[in-house]
Amino acid sequence: MALKYQEVALNLADKIKAHEYDKKLPSEGKLMEEYSVSRNTIRNALNVLYNQGLLRRIQGSGYFINHPLHNQANIVNMANKNGLHDLEEKDAILSKILVFETILAGETIGSYLKIDPKDSVYHIKRIRRRKDELVSLEESFYRKDVVPYLTEEICNESISAFIKEHFQVTSKTADEYMSLHRLNEEEAELTGKDVGSSAFMIEEINCQKNEQPYDYSKTLYFLPDLMFYSHISNYLD
Amino acid sequence: MALKYQEVALNLADKIKAHEYDKKLPSEGKLMEEYSVSRNTIRNALNVLYNQGLLRRIQGSGYFINHPLHNQANIVNMANKNGLHDLEEKDAILSKILVFETILAGETIGSYLKIDPKDSVYHIKRIRRRKDELVSLEESFYRKDVVPYLTEEICNESISAFIKEHFQVTSKTADEYMSLHRLNEEEAELTGKDVGSSAFMIEEINCQKNEQPYDYSKTLYFLPDLMFYSHISNYLD
Repeated sequence: MALKYQEVALNLADKIKAHEYDKKLPSEGKLMEEYSVSRNTIRNALNVLYNQGLLRRIQGSGYFINHPLHNQANIVNMANKNGLHDLEEKDAILSKILVFETILAGETIGSYLKIDPKDSVYHIKRIRRRKDELVSLEESFYRKDVVPYLTEEICNESISAFIKEHFQVTSKTADEYMSLHRLNEEEAELTGKDVGSSAFMIEEINCQKNEQPYDYSKTLYFLPDLMFYSHISNYLD
Repeated sequence: MALKYQEVALNLADKIKAHEYDKKLPSEGKLMEEYSVSRNTIRNALNVLYNQGLLRRIQGSGYFINHPLHNQANIVNMANKNGLHDLEEKDAILSKILVFETILAGETIGSYLKIDPKDSVYHIKRIRRRKDELVSLEESFYRKDVVPYLTEEICNESISAFIKEHFQVTSKTADEYMSLHRLNEEEAELTGKDVGSSAFMIEEINCQKNEQPYDYSKTLYFLPDLMFYSHISNYLD
C-alpha cells in the first residue's frame, strides 16, 4: 500500500506530465492545502520527484519543472521503474509470448539472482508492438520462490503490476546496464531485422526491499527516437 | 576540497575496483580503525558507495560487494561522473581537437544552459581514441560566465579535472539522456563509419551545486562491449 507522500508524489508526477504546471510548482503552503496533508508529507513527496529529476530546486525561489531535453514523447525515466508504461499511447502496446516455461536457474541466472542453479525460475520471452511498430524483445527470469504464480495470460499484460498486486513484490532498487547490442541470428529472425543490426539493450536486476534480487531481464528496444533518462546526484564532489 | 567521508569513499571505491575486497566489506568498527575516523564518517562514506550501486546492504550482516554483471572491464558507472576515466587503461585515451571556439549560445544551447542566446559559450568538438580504437566523438558547450578560461591544450586532457581544480566547478547533479543514434554524414566522415550506422549516444546537462547548468554535451560512443551502469532507488513502491 502506498504511503501518503507516495500518493502525493504520483499525483504531482501525473500533473507535471500533463503539463498542468509549466514553469513552477505552487508553494509548499498551497500544496499542503490542496492535498490536505502536512508540510512533512509535501516535502517528502517533493524529494521523491526531485530525486527522479522531475524538479529543480532553486534556493529561495522554490521548485521548478525540469523539462526534458527536446521535450520528447518517447522518453522513459529509469528512476520510476515504469518502463514502457512511461510512453504516451501506452495502452496500445501488445505482447506476443514466445516462451513461457518453468526451468532450473542454471549457473548464470542463478548467480544473477543469488540462488542455487537447481532452484526454479519462470522464463519468459515476449515481443512487444505498438500498432505496427516493433517496440521491444524481452527475456526475463523470475525467482519462483518470490513470484510463486504466473501464467501466459498474465504475461500478455504488465507482469510488474500483477506481482505487485498479488505478491507485494516491487523493485526497491535495481541495477541497470545499458549498451548497444548487435542482433544475433535468433534475435534477427524473431524481429525481422538484419543480423548484426543494432538495438538499445538494457539488462536489469530488480531487488526487493530486503535487497534480494527477484528478476533478471534483458530487453532490446527498437522504437526509433526512444530515449532513456537518468538523473544523477554526485555525492563525491 | 573533498570532505573526509568523500576521501574515504573514494579510497574504498578504488579498493573495491582493485578487488581488494571480494565478497564483503570489513565491519564499520574495523573501517573506523583503518581510516582513523568516526563512525559517522564511515557511515556517510558507505552511503555514497551504496547510492552508487557499489555495495548491497543486507540487514544484520553488513555491506557486500555488488559485482557488476559479466564482471566487465569496459563499464562506466554513471553516478560517479568519471566518464571514460572509469575504464581500465584510461591513460591511453588520446584526444584530437576538431573544433575549439567561443560562440554565442543561440536559442537551443541557450535554453539547455538557461542563458540568453547572446551569451558566450565555449564550443568544443573532439574525437577520442585508445590505441587504434575509436572511443568517442564528443561535442560540448560550456558557459563562459562559469568557465572563464579554456585552451585547446587543456582540451587534450580532462576538461572536468581542469575546471574543478581552477574554478571549483563540479557536477553536483546531471541529467543524462541515452539513446541509439544513427550517424549523419558529418559524423560518419569524422569517424570513418557508415552513414546511418549506430552509436550509443549520451546527451547530458551538468549542473553545479546551485542547480545552475554549466555544460551541455553530446557524446557518441563507439567502443564495442562498452556498458553504462546506473543504480536505481525506487522511492515510489
